[in-house]
Amino acid sequence: MDVIAELSGLIGADAVLTSKSDLEGATEDWRGRYRGPALCLVRPSNAEQVAAVVRCCARRGIPLLPQGGNTSLCGGATPSETGPAPVILNLARMRAVRGIDPVNSTMEVEAGCVLATVQEAAAAAGRLYPVSLGAEGSCQIGGTIATNAGGTSVLRYGNTRDNVLGLEVVLADGTIWSGLYGLRKNNTGYDLKHLFIGSEGTLGIITAATLKLHPLPTRHAVAWVGIADPADALTLLTRVQERCGARLSAFEMINRLQLDLVVEQVPGRRSPIETPADWHVLIELSDNSDGDALDMELQLILEDAFGDGLLTDAALAASDAQRHAMWEVRHSVSEANKKAGVGLTTDCAVPLSAVPAFIDAATAAVQALVADLPVIVVAHLGDGNVHFIPFFTFDAWNAVGNAVADREAMAAAIRHAVNDEAARLHGTFSAEHGVGRVQLGEMARYKPAAELALMRAVKQALDPQNLFNPGRLLPPG
Amino acid sequence: MDVIAELSGLIGADAVLTSKSDLEGATEDWRGRYRGPALCLVRPSNAEQVAAVVRCCARRGIPLLPQGGNTSLCGGATPSETGPAPVILNLARMRAVRGIDPVNSTMEVEAGCVLATVQEAAAAAGRLYPVSLGAEGSCQIGGTIATNAGGTSVLRYGNTRDNVLGLEVVLADGTIWSGLYGLRKNNTGYDLKHLFIGSEGTLGIITAATLKLHPLPTRHAVAWVGIADPADALTLLTRVQERCGARLSAFEMINRLQLDLVVEQVPGRRSPIETPADWHVLIELSDNSDGDALDMELQLILEDAFGDGLLTDAALAASDAQRHAMWEVRHSVSEANKKAGVGLTTDCAVPLSAVPAFIDAATAAVQALVADLPVIVVAHLGDGNVHFIPFFTFDAWNAVGNAVADREAMAAAIRHAVNDEAARLHGTFSAEHGVGRVQLGEMARYKPAAELALMRAVKQALDPQNLFNPGRLLPPG
Repeated sequence: MDVIAELSGLIGADAVLTSKSDLEGATEDWRGRYRGPALCLVRPSNAEQVAAVVRCCARRGIPLLPQGGNTSLCGGATPSETGPAPVILNLARMRAVRGIDPVNSTMEVEAGCVLATVQEAAAAAGRLYPVSLGAEGSCQIGGTIATNAGGTSVLRYGNTRDNVLGLEVVLADGTIWSGLYGLRKNNTGYDLKHLFIGSEGTLGIITAATLKLHPLPTRHAVAWVGIADPADALTLLTRVQERCGARLSAFEMINRLQLDLVVEQVPGRRSPIETPADWHVLIELSDNSDGDALDMELQLILEDAFGDGLLTDAALAASDAQRHAMWEVRHSVSEANKKAGVGLTTDCAVPLSAVPAFIDAATAAVQALVADLPVIVVAHLGDGNVHFIPFFTFDAWNAVGNAVADREAMAAAIRHAVNDEAARLHGTFSAEHGVGRVQLGEMARYKPAAELALMRAVKQALDPQNLFNPGRLLPPG
Repeated sequence: MDVIAELSGLIGADAVLTSKSDLEGATEDWRGRYRGPALCLVRPSNAEQVAAVVRCCARRGIPLLPQGGNTSLCGGATPSETGPAPVILNLARMRAVRGIDPVNSTMEVEAGCVLATVQEAAAAAGRLYPVSLGAEGSCQIGGTIATNAGGTSVLRYGNTRDNVLGLEVVLADGTIWSGLYGLRKNNTGYDLKHLFIGSEGTLGIITAATLKLHPLPTRHAVAWVGIADPADALTLLTRVQERCGARLSAFEMINRLQLDLVVEQVPGRRSPIETPADWHVLIELSDNSDGDALDMELQLILEDAFGDGLLTDAALAASDAQRHAMWEVRHSVSEANKKAGVGLTTDCAVPLSAVPAFIDAATAAVQALVADLPVIVVAHLGDGNVHFIPFFTFDAWNAVGNAVADREAMAAAIRHAVNDEAARLHGTFSAEHGVGRVQLGEMARYKPAAELALMRAVKQALDPQNLFNPGRLLPPG
């Protein structure tokens, strides 16, 4: 019996897709950069069916590729061009919100549930599931857990890792580990969930999770601030943190070029402040206070900072519409950059205190390779996460294509120059996007040998056949 | 050459202690319940010396027992009575605070640094290291990380696990893994630090850590509340969380018997409220607001709750002295219980919504074994962590000794009855104390087979010789 027939017998013929049209959305990533063949796509309905698929693939030595919403930015969820074609595991049929416990502030969900659905279900129960990111309308909660997704609320609520209390995972031998604990404290041996969170599907198949919820904030105060340089932005951040503690829920920074591109490229966007500034900061406080206490607190902080010469201009959102408009400027950066040219996006994080030095050093390093190359900076400053983006207009990019033999090699050299500066400042080349296939070279380049050896020992222990998502996360040994 | 001579050659004769008097503090736990022989006690001065000791022991097949402040409550850090005598590894010479970065809110410390010293160093830099527990004057930061220590600030700041950003660890082959990252976001492969945090010294030797610091709160509002039952306490907790969010920094609950014992047994303690109540709750808010805004907020919440019949009496601390006095009542529970009789302490956690059911069911279960047995309840209610303590006066305990053949077996049966009820409600038998040797039987009793098998696979991968702290954490397979 061939594998398609066996899988059909195990989980039903309607759950095993093989036609080209059924597979095309799954064998190519959403930006069309990576593609590869697959044997089939399976759509199991429960953890037992997932386990049956795993056992079948293990016995036959066929790799298994778990795929959520297929929104990876680093080729983590599409098949390789070479090597044995995998079975793609799609969990969209497992999308139930199994239950919400508002007193315990937890929610049990199946892995195929879309992130936005999770957020909405939590809000309907008066709770917040805080993880929020651009792809939230299509990415699945299982994928966000497998990749430890970040986003714009990490400063206050942490990464996905910090918002997961328990997991159900199908292991490489087909065992189902039921670890759906909903506990704040549990010191009974190794905390295994942290192995699977961020493992990018290489250690097991996450089929369900118990999520940690938070009180739903009812008040938000938002301001847009013009500022001279990243060092002043850091000083302001420290002040706000010292005065507001956990009420600070966002501290985002962009540079002048980024704001200019948004205003030029995206209809309806304009600068929230009038005075031009080299750097711009969006600050958000949130809590459940009554009246306008939160706005008044933010205004006082900004007045003090203005008096001390820390900022050049500021606007406090006076209505929900103004608040929304400020966030829309921030959320329009990807659209603007895509329309304006070619940005070589990076995803570095450094200690917060090193952010100004990192931006200076990375700018110098890329301009040593390409004289006067403009750079875009989009930073989750509160997390030390800087998307430093060397930027070419389409004309400039075409000119490069005419001038150098291998433009992709030049792009890689530019990215390496940025990542090298992050590494020198004890930072990382992947703060939130993960490794996938794109960053395998950087893993080999920057990770200490002892750390790679430990990761390989863990992989060997949990997936000795290299069944799960082979060729991802770990560079060849 | 014998092992003592080899170790002396490696790290200096003054760092290898063998005399009975030098060893006696390390071969017995602080409560005098567990003791066993050791070959020697070594006091290395740096990670390289630790690695040399590990390699020596690995080559000779001698077990290695890392010991911090020797404050374990479950026999986790003293030698076994049987089996090969270990080398005890003491890191007290590695106690430097290597540096504090107030802008990044991080601190790098060596593992032998005492927890109180870490707290003080953070405070001197205007920052908070939030982990706080009874043994903080003698326990070492390395031990708190290896055991994922809890304490009274978990509700706001999480467990130790949530306050560690990076680790330096000596592995079983003598390799030093330098993972002292100080980053809020780092998605580059498996997050290995979480394997070592809470591993109770069984996977590697933690030699240094990068800790996450927080803004130092300057204002505290504390109230003591009399309440009818745990269900009302939960309702009040939910209200405070919804209104105050992360400003809620403690929500502790004790029952009437516990308060009575504190007042009777500990000089100077008295009930903070006048009306007798069956249950008592201590609430603390903290932040960096100006003036008495925080007190006013807490007062409003309490007035509303009183109006709704949720509480029977309440006192808001009107001064630092009153606030201190309320906390002293809470901190006196161990002293009071020890003076008053024999308490069979347990360390359960359940989902918060299940706390009332757990207390009822555990009470019924123990009273089915011993009719009318009094129970003490001390709960970190905000974490779902209930220390449910079946209690015997000394007279009653002596009477039991005369009535039953094996009093320890009866005590174990009572604890099992409590832990069984926690397990039935999807809870745990060890919320914060860990496993050590005392809870090995409970690990075998309650943990799913798939979870134990995963833990054994990890142990085998990282410590194939079973060199580190054998006979702890994992029950025999």
